[in-house]
Amino acid sequence: MAELDPVIHAQARLKIMSTLAALDTDGSIAFPRLQEVLSMTAGNLSTHLRKLEDADYVEQQKAFSGRTPVTYVSATRAGRRAFEDYLEQLRDLLGGTP
Amino acid sequence: MAELDPVIHAQARLKIMSTLAALDTDGSIAFPRLQEVLSMTAGNLSTHLRKLEDADYVEQQKAFSGRTPVTYVSATRAGRRAFEDYLEQLRDLLGGTP
Repeated sequence: MAELDPVIHAQARLKIMSTLAALDTDGSIAFPRLQEVLSMTAGNLSTHLRKLEDADYVEQQKAFSGRTPVTYVSATRAGRRAFEDYLEQLRDLLGGTP
Repeated sequence: MAELDPVIHAQARLKIMSTLAALDTDGSIAFPRLQEVLSMTAGNLSTHLRKLEDADYVEQQKAFSGRTPVTYVSATRAGRRAFEDYLEQLRDLLGGTP
């Protein structure tokens, strides 16, 4: 039976990857906006993003909006591929399901 | 954003529920057979089944095959409903996904 990537399967990270994968390729989302979409605290979101970064699935880039630093988050190419593999394995796993 | 039932979302329990939900209503599966289908150790399977029993999602019944006691495992009605809800919330969560 399929083994689901535990880096992606954890509920918070599944939501993050699902949101990032829905962006255009090369698309990114500002950290505060992502926080709002997912209703997560900054600390919780940061923790999960770090885990996804460690797996090379997401990237964070700092930019300036006027004088304010803003962090933009995006899925890497490896992250998108891992997420697609995850979805396929999930479909396999749920295959017998009505 | 949808919250996934953590009792079901854990990978091992997702596999168990998916397997049990694929049985006929009123269908059950022998513990050793379930263990084989899922490639899980008896201890690991027992632990997860206990958690699912505590949530009233599965039922275990002892029967005899000749003199050998066999445990049969099935999803309860509440378990099937919870699993369907889980799948719907998962679809919601993955909704933005290509």
